[in-house]
Amino acid sequence: MTSPKNMLNNIQETLLMGPGPSCVAPTVYDALSKNTLGHLDPYFIKIMDQIKVELQKLLQTENPLTIPISGTGSAGMECCFVNLIEKNDPVLILINGVFGKRMQDVAARLGARVDTIEFEWGTPVDLNKVSEHLTDKHYKIVAVVHAETSTGVRNPVSEIGELLKGSNTIYLVDAVTSLGGIPVKMDEWNIDALYSGTQKCLSCPPGLAPVSFSGKAVAAIKNRKSKVPNWYLDLTMIINYWEGQTRAYHHTAPINMLYALYQALNDVHSEGLSAVFDRHLKCHKQLVAGLENLGMQMLVEPEYRLPMLNSVLIPENTDEAQVRKKLLTEYRIEIGAGLGPLAGKIWRIGVMGHTAREGNIEKLVNTFSEIL
Amino acid sequence: MTSPKNMLNNIQETLLMGPGPSCVAPTVYDALSKNTLGHLDPYFIKIMDQIKVELQKLLQTENPLTIPISGTGSAGMECCFVNLIEKNDPVLILINGVFGKRMQDVAARLGARVDTIEFEWGTPVDLNKVSEHLTDKHYKIVAVVHAETSTGVRNPVSEIGELLKGSNTIYLVDAVTSLGGIPVKMDEWNIDALYSGTQKCLSCPPGLAPVSFSGKAVAAIKNRKSKVPNWYLDLTMIINYWEGQTRAYHHTAPINMLYALYQALNDVHSEGLSAVFDRHLKCHKQLVAGLENLGMQMLVEPEYRLPMLNSVLIPENTDEAQVRKKLLTEYRIEIGAGLGPLAGKIWRIGVMGHTAREGNIEKLVNTFSEIL
Repeated sequence: MTSPKNMLNNIQETLLMGPGPSCVAPTVYDALSKNTLGHLDPYFIKIMDQIKVELQKLLQTENPLTIPISGTGSAGMECCFVNLIEKNDPVLILINGVFGKRMQDVAARLGARVDTIEFEWGTPVDLNKVSEHLTDKHYKIVAVVHAETSTGVRNPVSEIGELLKGSNTIYLVDAVTSLGGIPVKMDEWNIDALYSGTQKCLSCPPGLAPVSFSGKAVAAIKNRKSKVPNWYLDLTMIINYWEGQTRAYHHTAPINMLYALYQALNDVHSEGLSAVFDRHLKCHKQLVAGLENLGMQMLVEPEYRLPMLNSVLIPENTDEAQVRKKLLTEYRIEIGAGLGPLAGKIWRIGVMGHTAREGNIEKLVNTFSEIL
Repeated sequence: MTSPKNMLNNIQETLLMGPGPSCVAPTVYDALSKNTLGHLDPYFIKIMDQIKVELQKLLQTENPLTIPISGTGSAGMECCFVNLIEKNDPVLILINGVFGKRMQDVAARLGARVDTIEFEWGTPVDLNKVSEHLTDKHYKIVAVVHAETSTGVRNPVSEIGELLKGSNTIYLVDAVTSLGGIPVKMDEWNIDALYSGTQKCLSCPPGLAPVSFSGKAVAAIKNRKSKVPNWYLDLTMIINYWEGQTRAYHHTAPINMLYALYQALNDVHSEGLSAVFDRHLKCHKQLVAGLENLGMQMLVEPEYRLPMLNSVLIPENTDEAQVRKKLLTEYRIEIGAGLGPLAGKIWRIGVMGHTAREGNIEKLVNTFSEIL
């Protein structure tokens, strides 16, 4: 029996400038292939403890329950909602893109009574509308996406947190694309529950979802009347593996992915948070200047733009799919298409983590100038 | 700011002879650190297609819906139950260890009316009792664990499938520990839904859960009256990413883990299934002979023993935790403790995948003879 040609040998290095995954640093590739340890090995548990500490630093939080969930970013979303929602709980979701919509779907499936306020895609959440709405009705959970990956808009997460201060509402934030690229100040901003992913500004391959829960959120989970209807993501059990003296087996942790996250966090903290954020911002400015110089226009107003996710309007008379295909096949550069109402109208250009370097931006802009 | 010492540099190579993870082959470590591609890159989609084909070969099934779920083995369990169960569905679970118990917990959380038949841990499911029970009551789902990792017992999965033939009951099987170590003949055995893990006999790091669904199971999912109450694991959406002409983004696939699974499957098929199974059986016999030669006794009767998970009674007057600690710290060999009613009574010795080699068995037996 001859086995088919091994496709892994022909993977081409690709400049990942889409909405994620981003380029992975060589240090992180090395980490991925370190020797696998058992999930109860005391040395591995020390690595887990260090991951918690580094995640806390990154999220600027003192929440003890700050851990990576064994799934991708969407598993983090599922985890936050399934642990916090009980049947008929009133939930408000602020929506201005795909990931707000996804929150609505996740929460509704879990039996929550979901209200939404929708905002035009490409514009941020309007604080006044949220404030008005909150005077009319009380919610157990208010949820919003920090960095809307489908549009490139930064939502006013800190200001919404201010609105909710002093209430018993749980404030839930999606920080999948923001974490590691712009500041996320969980405690200062009054955030109670947060999820993220590893494949954006942390430049780790996809597969893990950092989450963090405030004391208020943990109390809500502990006071549930019903069991969490999802064994795999039940934090009351997962905690016993990630905390305490005796670590109780729950599910087998994704060991090598956790090595990669450990390394990625190490890299971020070695460079320093403010240096990392500056690098993202600088690359973003370089990209926007380059694109505008080619006559292209950004979707989002400057003050609401995300540095790590740049939505640019597709020039007239351009076959957008053809351009993306050409970039990928001839230049090995990946950029993202628009989603939903923005499909065919924008490209999404990621400047995330290890991708966020001057030479990469230059390469994309030069290639655009060649082929457009 | 000085960063703390990188703990990854001091990971020691460990002979993983516990209940999983098992030792990872160098080919699989290499695969893990190949360049990350985008999850919609046509080349990556070809790799996904190949993974499906190789999984079908391994499961001896023609089910088109045969894919890896983005989570560990327990996410596979959650996925099977959450897609198949609707509120108040009658479910029968056959239990003779931890993983049968876990099935009961998962199904009950999802609102099923769960009946169980329990059998003594260390003994197999008794077909007569199952047969009697099935004449009294009809079930939507009957579920059993093929290889009970907590005891080392092989359950009569083929025979239970025979009992269910011709009924409209969905037959659900846990093949986490069996897959890649003993035959799993999904179609011939009449299995409708099956989940597994990568960190046992496939010798891939933990993080993915292969699942497969028969036409009957897919029809049950498509005919649901309610949405699957778990967005992340909703197969009706996941299918659209793994099948068809246009691949719709659902969640970002764990790219590098999928490379590792691709390679592990390649390695298994290159060696050939029957050679792989023979190797496991040969190592199992070598281990049992070695242990019995040291005066130790196996928990399970010979005909029900699993080759890949060996439960051995702890010799009298032995501090079992101390022995495990010594093995790990002084010899870098990991073996597993007993769980539940078998805690303190057995050790669990894994002979899985890349671990299943003559020299490894010899090393463990020699070390036992030295330290016991």
